[in-house]
Amino acid sequence: MGLPIIWNFLWLYFSNNQSVRSDLMKIALIQLNYIIGDFEGNTKKIIQSIQEAKSKGASLAIFSELSVCGYPPKDLLEFDDFIEKCEESVQKISRACRDIAAIVGSPIKNETRKGKPLFNAALLLYEGQVLGIQRKTLLPDDDIFDEYRYFEPNQQFDVFEFRGERIALCICEDLLDTDNNPLYLCKPQDELLKLNPSLMVNISASPFHDNQTELRPKILKENTVRSQIPLIYVNQVGAHTDLIFDGDSMVIDIYGDIVARMKLFAEDMVIVDTKKLHSISNALPHYPLSRIEMIHDALVFGIQEYFGKLNLKNAILGLSGGIDSALVLVLAKEALGNDHVKALILPSHYTAPQSITDAILLSQRLEVDFEIISIDKAYKSLENTFEYFFKKMPSDVTEENLQARLRGIILMAFSNKFGHILLNTSNKSELAVGYGTLYGDMCGGLSVLGDVYKTDVYALAHYINCKSPIIPESTLLKPPSAELRPNQKDSDSLPLYEILDPILRLYIEEQQGPTEIIAQGHDSALVLRILKMVNSNEYKRYQAPPVLRVSKKAFGSGRRMPIVGKYLE
Amino acid sequence: MGLPIIWNFLWLYFSNNQSVRSDLMKIALIQLNYIIGDFEGNTKKIIQSIQEAKSKGASLAIFSELSVCGYPPKDLLEFDDFIEKCEESVQKISRACRDIAAIVGSPIKNETRKGKPLFNAALLLYEGQVLGIQRKTLLPDDDIFDEYRYFEPNQQFDVFEFRGERIALCICEDLLDTDNNPLYLCKPQDELLKLNPSLMVNISASPFHDNQTELRPKILKENTVRSQIPLIYVNQVGAHTDLIFDGDSMVIDIYGDIVARMKLFAEDMVIVDTKKLHSISNALPHYPLSRIEMIHDALVFGIQEYFGKLNLKNAILGLSGGIDSALVLVLAKEALGNDHVKALILPSHYTAPQSITDAILLSQRLEVDFEIISIDKAYKSLENTFEYFFKKMPSDVTEENLQARLRGIILMAFSNKFGHILLNTSNKSELAVGYGTLYGDMCGGLSVLGDVYKTDVYALAHYINCKSPIIPESTLLKPPSAELRPNQKDSDSLPLYEILDPILRLYIEEQQGPTEIIAQGHDSALVLRILKMVNSNEYKRYQAPPVLRVSKKAFGSGRRMPIVGKYLE
Repeated sequence: MGLPIIWNFLWLYFSNNQSVRSDLMKIALIQLNYIIGDFEGNTKKIIQSIQEAKSKGASLAIFSELSVCGYPPKDLLEFDDFIEKCEESVQKISRACRDIAAIVGSPIKNETRKGKPLFNAALLLYEGQVLGIQRKTLLPDDDIFDEYRYFEPNQQFDVFEFRGERIALCICEDLLDTDNNPLYLCKPQDELLKLNPSLMVNISASPFHDNQTELRPKILKENTVRSQIPLIYVNQVGAHTDLIFDGDSMVIDIYGDIVARMKLFAEDMVIVDTKKLHSISNALPHYPLSRIEMIHDALVFGIQEYFGKLNLKNAILGLSGGIDSALVLVLAKEALGNDHVKALILPSHYTAPQSITDAILLSQRLEVDFEIISIDKAYKSLENTFEYFFKKMPSDVTEENLQARLRGIILMAFSNKFGHILLNTSNKSELAVGYGTLYGDMCGGLSVLGDVYKTDVYALAHYINCKSPIIPESTLLKPPSAELRPNQKDSDSLPLYEILDPILRLYIEEQQGPTEIIAQGHDSALVLRILKMVNSNEYKRYQAPPVLRVSKKAFGSGRRMPIVGKYLE
Repeated sequence: MGLPIIWNFLWLYFSNNQSVRSDLMKIALIQLNYIIGDFEGNTKKIIQSIQEAKSKGASLAIFSELSVCGYPPKDLLEFDDFIEKCEESVQKISRACRDIAAIVGSPIKNETRKGKPLFNAALLLYEGQVLGIQRKTLLPDDDIFDEYRYFEPNQQFDVFEFRGERIALCICEDLLDTDNNPLYLCKPQDELLKLNPSLMVNISASPFHDNQTELRPKILKENTVRSQIPLIYVNQVGAHTDLIFDGDSMVIDIYGDIVARMKLFAEDMVIVDTKKLHSISNALPHYPLSRIEMIHDALVFGIQEYFGKLNLKNAILGLSGGIDSALVLVLAKEALGNDHVKALILPSHYTAPQSITDAILLSQRLEVDFEIISIDKAYKSLENTFEYFFKKMPSDVTEENLQARLRGIILMAFSNKFGHILLNTSNKSELAVGYGTLYGDMCGGLSVLGDVYKTDVYALAHYINCKSPIIPESTLLKPPSAELRPNQKDSDSLPLYEILDPILRLYIEEQQGPTEIIAQGHDSALVLRILKMVNSNEYKRYQAPPVLRVSKKAFGSGRRMPIVGKYLE
């Protein structure tokens, strides 16, 4: 189409401003759910939202970071074809900006050919043109972030005039750093403030964790009070496999009060008048959800998203009568509906009758389809197969794993035959210490509780039962057991979860070493034993399913540890 | 011990140079195999090598990048305890430097508290002191590298005087970039040359891939000719799970000739006289190994290392009579010895008699212990279990996967009972297009061939048989088949590997998009079908075992793709 898109100019004063300076402009914050690499779908959604915003009187519609391609695109960014598709999307969107401007996020080429080949950019689009480009300065490269892998950091700052506002644009981390963070050598906010802006706009792709809805507004408020100009913050919503983006976009006035706050875990659009942001407005009350409520909602959303975005409908899981699978079943039903979840109850001769009763009761209460299939016959057949080879060797972890793996095989057969996706039910405490069977109970397309410690599993179950007593009392009360040998209890092999979880949390989330953990009063032999268990089980976690991330440090791409090594082992 | 280690000074002129300037200094290049986080072991090894170098007349011993902790330490770098252990190791090593200096690699703290908390440093140690520190400037953050995640880039350059040489120190990538690489904004070599050095020393942790022994010396030679000062390059050797470091340390004289070249895949020590590097010396001939020979050696070494560093002795694998498992068995025997490898032949009624014959013949030729265990009875038992649920539904991928998973269960039971580690036998072509069963033939602690395309699997088998005809002819000649249904052939579901592999290579190694690949003459429908298969099978690869990396782009940590997405799907 030969659109005159110039990627490299510094800033272009808005030339078509016949509409002249206005003291009031309506701005639409548009919090959407994108699919990574779905250029057709994302573009269509963005254009529809622009039209809706226009019909509601907005002059500017703001979308989130890398909105044209979805965040995080990962190594797809290394494909020229992918970048060209981003450029095409930006062109299409810019042509749809008639009588309304839009700010979208897209990777753009680094035409200087010095440094990384791309920038992570915010683009101001209007009447088929790119009016302004601001590149991202602070590129997070920790935990789940790999931005420096793809992007060159920005070193140029501009302010864009539009309808009487001088808009300072920045991207996510550019405004999510705090003064006492030694990590970054440059503070983009300060550079932008030198240019005398009247409005700060941050487009973001900031994932959820269990403290994020406290932490993020706190930092944004601090930075807004400091800058004395109002802030519009637009985050994306939606989950991409393991990463859950909560949305929670917001508007903060110059007094640091949140005057608009958008939905958690849902698409949303809010329209604000810019003028109101400079006068005293009505601050919204604090978000009313507790940490456990928030984790609950995130997990339900994460399941929904995994299935929805892969065009899958139905889930299956192994229901043991224990608390982990009970909780996953409740969450899956909430996410997908009772008609789309199936439970397999797979007892062996080690399974307590109460476990079967509890599993049946829960399925019935949830109105979820279930089957009871004993693994004993298949187990016996394999036992016969092994008899000659194992001779009279004593029963050990082999036979325990065999049961878990038979359950895995049966679940996967149902998955294959009926197209149900297997949900994994391992919790974070188990995953941490390797208390699980590879290719057995570690099977599944998605780990629902892999970032939830056992003590939080209980808290979630109690939260659910507070609303309505669904999970059987005895599931909640009985001592945790894998039921793989007579009278087995988790506490035979592991410390009590009340003792284990705080130590795991210090090691995994807080990244404290043995000395620091012991200094906090934990038993030193126990601490060393637990750290050794964590480190020597990296090989199992390497093959675990992707884990829905709800803490600031989940197993998966955000935690990268050697498998072969000798540190604290 | 109160050692006066000063991490922050610019450079300290060597104050104890009573030994005065000498026209000849012997330098030891010490190519060692480290274990990540094994501070005691690594330090001991380094100190012993220093003593050996001294006994051979060397005044300076040079070790590789991050030698005190092993490379790559990954997120262990985020633990203060880990960094303190590095500091302790450096102190111990420096105290062992009596009448000899050493250059070691270690993370050091960034005391400025601006930017990332660490530097990746080369330290010149002598008589209990740190005489010089040079930090790494170019931090690779692509493919398998995540250095910017941990380290702040250096911006200061120094040259260290020692025994009449002015030593310019740099680390790996600092000298492995080329002039036409637009990635980096600074060329450390040029900064160092301004300081008029007489000797360039590069300490490195550069992993193997199938073109590395050509590529690395080419770049180093170019840079040496350009600088007109001799180069000492010390790489580490050893594998860390998936990453194989080949060693191949070398000395290059000012004419760009390699005058010393160290072993591939083995520890080594070489002592050179500095004076000889400035005069015409005898260039070594080009490395005589072919690409396939090198891959062969790398895979054998990778298996050895995985077992050796985890203190494991014995491997097991499923031997199908096909070429992949045959090749893995040969490699495993070479790596571990015939007494430490066991083959399970696990036929079903779909298995051709010839496959069993071939598997037996290969085991016998290799003098490897094997067992034949039919999976039919266990399969029948599970079939009965499913009969009621699957009713008269036609046989499909469910039944095929069931066979693969039963084999997985049996192999894992042997693994658990006897402590054999299961080697995975999937090749890169299969992994790429998802032609494998999760929790079935995708089981294993280590994937030996996951970075080897099927066409290279054949090339490796022919290479092995050229030396001695071990792999049965019919294994080499018969059409590839998973033998999971009557008369099944890979070519029923997949293009011929001769057609598939080049397209996969363009997409995976060369990161070309569909337009570029089609432009090279490949059928467009086929290309799109293959790319779709690759992208929609990320979920399977996510749970695959770690893959021994022998190409420049292997599945695993070096290739990060979304699971949930819609690009080319």
